[in-house]
Amino acid sequence: MFKTAIIGDGYTAVELLRLLAFHNSIKAEYILSLDFAGNPVEQMYPNLSGYSDLICVKSDIGLLEGKCDAVFLALPHGVSAPIAKQLLDWGVKCVDLGADFRLKDVDTYLEYYGLTHQEPRLLEQAVYGIPELYREDIKRAGLVANPGCYPTSAIIPLAPLLKNGLLDKQPLLIDSKSGVSGAGRELKTGSQFCEVNEGIRPYGIGSHRHEPEIIQELSRATGSPVELYFSPHLVPMNRGMLSTIYGRLRPGVNEEDVLDCLKEQYGTEPFVKLLAPGVMPHTKWVYGGNQLQIGVYVDRRNGQLIMASALDNLTKGASGQAIQNMNLMLGLDETEGLKAPGLFP
Amino acid sequence: MFKTAIIGDGYTAVELLRLLAFHNSIKAEYILSLDFAGNPVEQMYPNLSGYSDLICVKSDIGLLEGKCDAVFLALPHGVSAPIAKQLLDWGVKCVDLGADFRLKDVDTYLEYYGLTHQEPRLLEQAVYGIPELYREDIKRAGLVANPGCYPTSAIIPLAPLLKNGLLDKQPLLIDSKSGVSGAGRELKTGSQFCEVNEGIRPYGIGSHRHEPEIIQELSRATGSPVELYFSPHLVPMNRGMLSTIYGRLRPGVNEEDVLDCLKEQYGTEPFVKLLAPGVMPHTKWVYGGNQLQIGVYVDRRNGQLIMASALDNLTKGASGQAIQNMNLMLGLDETEGLKAPGLFP
Amino acid sequence: MFKTAIIGDGYTAVELLRLLAFHNSIKAEYILSLDFAGNPVEQMYPNLSGYSDLICVKSDIGLLEGKCDAVFLALPHGVSAPIAKQLLDWGVKCVDLGADFRLKDVDTYLEYYGLTHQEPRLLEQAVYGIPELYREDIKRAGLVANPGCYPTSAIIPLAPLLKNGLLDKQPLLIDSKSGVSGAGRELKTGSQFCEVNEGIRPYGIGSHRHEPEIIQELSRATGSPVELYFSPHLVPMNRGMLSTIYGRLRPGVNEEDVLDCLKEQYGTEPFVKLLAPGVMPHTKWVYGGNQLQIGVYVDRRNGQLIMASALDNLTKGASGQAIQNMNLMLGLDETEGLKAPGLFP
Amino acid sequence: MFKTAIIGDGYTAVELLRLLAFHNSIKAEYILSLDFAGNPVEQMYPNLSGYSDLICVKSDIGLLEGKCDAVFLALPHGVSAPIAKQLLDWGVKCVDLGADFRLKDVDTYLEYYGLTHQEPRLLEQAVYGIPELYREDIKRAGLVANPGCYPTSAIIPLAPLLKNGLLDKQPLLIDSKSGVSGAGRELKTGSQFCEVNEGIRPYGIGSHRHEPEIIQELSRATGSPVELYFSPHLVPMNRGMLSTIYGRLRPGVNEEDVLDCLKEQYGTEPFVKLLAPGVMPHTKWVYGGNQLQIGVYVDRRNGQLIMASALDNLTKGASGQAIQNMNLMLGLDETEGLKAPGLFP
Repeated sequence: MFKTAIIGDGYTAVELLRLLAFHNSIKAEYILSLDFAGNPVEQMYPNLSGYSDLICVKSDIGLLEGKCDAVFLALPHGVSAPIAKQLLDWGVKCVDLGADFRLKDVDTYLEYYGLTHQEPRLLEQAVYGIPELYREDIKRAGLVANPGCYPTSAIIPLAPLLKNGLLDKQPLLIDSKSGVSGAGRELKTGSQFCEVNEGIRPYGIGSHRHEPEIIQELSRATGSPVELYFSPHLVPMNRGMLSTIYGRLRPGVNEEDVLDCLKEQYGTEPFVKLLAPGVMPHTKWVYGGNQLQIGVYVDRRNGQLIMASALDNLTKGASGQAIQNMNLMLGLDETEGLKAPGLFP
Repeated sequence: MFKTAIIGDGYTAVELLRLLAFHNSIKAEYILSLDFAGNPVEQMYPNLSGYSDLICVKSDIGLLEGKCDAVFLALPHGVSAPIAKQLLDWGVKCVDLGADFRLKDVDTYLEYYGLTHQEPRLLEQAVYGIPELYREDIKRAGLVANPGCYPTSAIIPLAPLLKNGLLDKQPLLIDSKSGVSGAGRELKTGSQFCEVNEGIRPYGIGSHRHEPEIIQELSRATGSPVELYFSPHLVPMNRGMLSTIYGRLRPGVNEEDVLDCLKEQYGTEPFVKLLAPGVMPHTKWVYGGNQLQIGVYVDRRNGQLIMASALDNLTKGASGQAIQNMNLMLGLDETEGLKAPGLFP
Repeated sequence: MFKTAIIGDGYTAVELLRLLAFHNSIKAEYILSLDFAGNPVEQMYPNLSGYSDLICVKSDIGLLEGKCDAVFLALPHGVSAPIAKQLLDWGVKCVDLGADFRLKDVDTYLEYYGLTHQEPRLLEQAVYGIPELYREDIKRAGLVANPGCYPTSAIIPLAPLLKNGLLDKQPLLIDSKSGVSGAGRELKTGSQFCEVNEGIRPYGIGSHRHEPEIIQELSRATGSPVELYFSPHLVPMNRGMLSTIYGRLRPGVNEEDVLDCLKEQYGTEPFVKLLAPGVMPHTKWVYGGNQLQIGVYVDRRNGQLIMASALDNLTKGASGQAIQNMNLMLGLDETEGLKAPGLFP
Repeated sequence: MFKTAIIGDGYTAVELLRLLAFHNSIKAEYILSLDFAGNPVEQMYPNLSGYSDLICVKSDIGLLEGKCDAVFLALPHGVSAPIAKQLLDWGVKCVDLGADFRLKDVDTYLEYYGLTHQEPRLLEQAVYGIPELYREDIKRAGLVANPGCYPTSAIIPLAPLLKNGLLDKQPLLIDSKSGVSGAGRELKTGSQFCEVNEGIRPYGIGSHRHEPEIIQELSRATGSPVELYFSPHLVPMNRGMLSTIYGRLRPGVNEEDVLDCLKEQYGTEPFVKLLAPGVMPHTKWVYGGNQLQIGVYVDRRNGQLIMASALDNLTKGASGQAIQNMNLMLGLDETEGLKAPGLFP
């Protein structure tokens, strides 16, 4: 049984605890929290009542020395870097659910997050944590940058098509819709029930932090810069993310080629599901589960491609993928702790 | 006081009654219903309790002869055409909230609605009812085809830009998100609470009936065929529609040109509101009101345009616009009955 | 045209602006706000865009001297008292939507609100603002204490039954369910979307501030102390309040007596609607409107009474009732500005 | 590995499949469906995509002869009785999630369900399936009547108090609030999204089918007839049920006695959780899990008791409890397949 600690107390932290509650090989031994130190987690998150007897400890990384094999960093942006440095020095495996190790370019990080990176030297060794694309690297990694929820929903469907040259002219357009838990538990007027319920709105068009992350990873997949626009929208639901993706196929490429390409890349993947032709995904079909579902539409007249991908932003979009990565890093079965299907309804 | 009848008993019918309840010049004298004949409307829709003492009468058009000046047809597709014919013969003004008179081409109508048009000769005299674009025609019309909710949300922001040649290469992409009332009151598994709540999904991509309607009207605005893709999505909310629209500006055209063009077209319109630069609309800002709000983003580097429009699918997207049209047809103040702002929250 | 000011910027303030937007005799001339001073209200609440060109002014009561006939105080508890004192000295009519003048007993106020009352002498002249019970007093009042939403939903159905001695043994039980806007716009973890959506919970049982208010008013109606329990619950919806009320009829009293008693009290009231026997109210039937609807069930075997009342907590439960009160205070038609039916769906 | 079949295709059926997906000792080998015969379950419920490769077979009980050890009946009322008879004759263990074996009195069954019972002789051997109260009987049972969701939420908190004579005068009042999945997947106007969302309403007061079931079981617990009123309400959420329960303690009984009594009954139960004094449950804390949580409030002045219980109507209120019962009937660990905590948020 590997011993692990969770640093943080937000929605991704409670989701980690939920999923680890029935993990056979990883045990959450510690949870570090600024606000809840001294209190049982079941008081902070009573859904864990009876499932976890952990007591939150104060957010002091020193407490973990020699105590655990692996750590999940579920912290605000900018805080993880020095902590990760210390943990890696102790030989502890780290998955960072925040953004600190996602962007390889510190200037882009500074531009989008307003922060000077504290540990730029770690960026090189940090592996971008999409197991379906970088499984072998992740197995060998000490530090994994767990992707953002939006990037996961965009990169998984697009990367194989770009890598194999199936897409033609740019820009790609990614119109994404997210449930509110993606905004975290931090108090914000825009996250209050009455400000969200019974409405939908775009936000962060042209400036969202996940845009450079998507561009970086898709450019890496193709080997040349990708042009794209990413428009996130806030939907009145707790969980769920849907990305509707628009592109144009290269002349001569058809729907079957797209399906074949995705099947070749993901056909045996436990957590990526290509839907039958004509079927588009619904976020309710992956609610609480770790699956990403993809639907494909192609206009045969001109190769216009419309894909949609659905995931649960807290599982495959965050904590589920983090456990998937950690399983790989620790040499475990990748699906351990993630086998439960989603809830319906 | 003009006397009017409503034929139909779904959500657009109750919305007409709500708005007409405090209209100073039009009175709903009759409501015809298949299912509720003999019952007071306040039993069918108790929100009208105390505001309307109408009794539903059976759906027999003969009852209306010589009894009213104007009729709102709030009926399933395919049913309105012969009724409109009769009413027009009697000299009664008609606004049809259904689809029967929207598509000018009976073959397209047959393809998308599966019906042979019953009164093709009326198509010529039917005016497409977007007052902000066709006000003078509507004033003179006997029959107005009230637009679909999706087309309203797409055509109003796009028509002036196309007409004035600001947009470059095609296709336009319209990614729309709708509340559930747009699907009507008809029983469907896909409209049951538990099938919708806590999820978002695309539907009808490549086959939605509003796609040819948008194409028809935008092609008419430009004078040449417009290529576009329209992707509707179902959002877990009662009311509200948001269309996120993607296009590319012609070289040399910039954000200011777009704003100027929209301002010139809509600057004095009571029901179209261009938001300040950098502000994107929220459907909650138009909830229950008759306003359509537009936000504009342009990437200065390359002229990529992202617009979003928001409306309430039951008011500006249906019954509010129908009353706006009827006001014009009857020579009344266009804003009569539509002056109330939306609710928040 | 009476000139009025609104002091406050929360949900009851925007609801006042919405309702006053089409009031024929009262005009909102000023809105005072701590946080939004200098900004147009349409920026703070864009649903008012195009309907109000008011600019928020700073929260300095001196600005209002000689400038208005009437003021709505939409402020946090404890802040209104000295402001009301000043306004009354200037001869300005005041409706206080907060709690400062509801409880007649300053010790109870201290116990439940943790505040020493600043203007206890005003308590005597403050009239409790339920027009259906205290209309004549309100007409003559300079200061009206606008009731809490929960008390309105409980007092209107119960007061006539108690006054007429129809109810037997105590305690009464009031199980209330409220939408989230009742909690205001203040940032609270418990009001964040993800903490509320997809759940229901009781709160404040045995300690809610509205319990002594209900007891005070119902005891006044009977002339002797009333024993009751009040259990509020938070429901995942923006607007709406339902109170399910349990009592026992005195021997010999039956359902017809209850209905007659309520009919006698409210039969001609524009904003209280007694539903047909067997029909229970739905909060959706009063959404956005100023109506309170009552349904009655009596078990004939033993006189057990179960009533349910529904209202919109922001209209009849707050701002609508405040305008109803102000209309009376200013000698206007009581229904002015409140004639619009609620929205459905 | 025990082989089991599910007969039915509604929400409780898909919930059974979800929970059995990671059950170590029971395997769902068959699912019988009228509407989906011939189709994979993952097409009917795509949340099971990748987790179940079952194909629905036609609803012909004969197919199951000699093929399975246990059957879950998830059928409309009135259909289960003859099927259960056949299965029992074959020696197959049955849990009926419908109402056919809950009421011991066929006249009451006729009155509330409008049906003459087809197999009255089976009623005697059917065990009412609340493991926390009837565990030993369930272990020996061939047929278990799985309780209604409302009765589960009422009986578990009340039975020990009644059995031990802690409660005084009657009637008990049970004010229950349910998510919409409790109404099943059957098409009904009252279950359509727009008719439910943004509202709350009572229904079935004085006539709900779960009232005689609660009375039967609580009377059995006390050994004498219990008087109570049960008021169900529909809440705009998919899952979750909260019952607020009002009673009066006998003179001399206090809050500690209540807590002790519940602790003694349920202190070691894996699925019943007594919350700390002052804490009331939230349905979100049991969302998707099999736990029932209880909070207790007592007014020390007079012994007024207010309890609230929360559960997920599809797990502990239906399919979870059914599996708990089946585990007992098959001699398995009672918590098998039910160990996962609920989701939050």
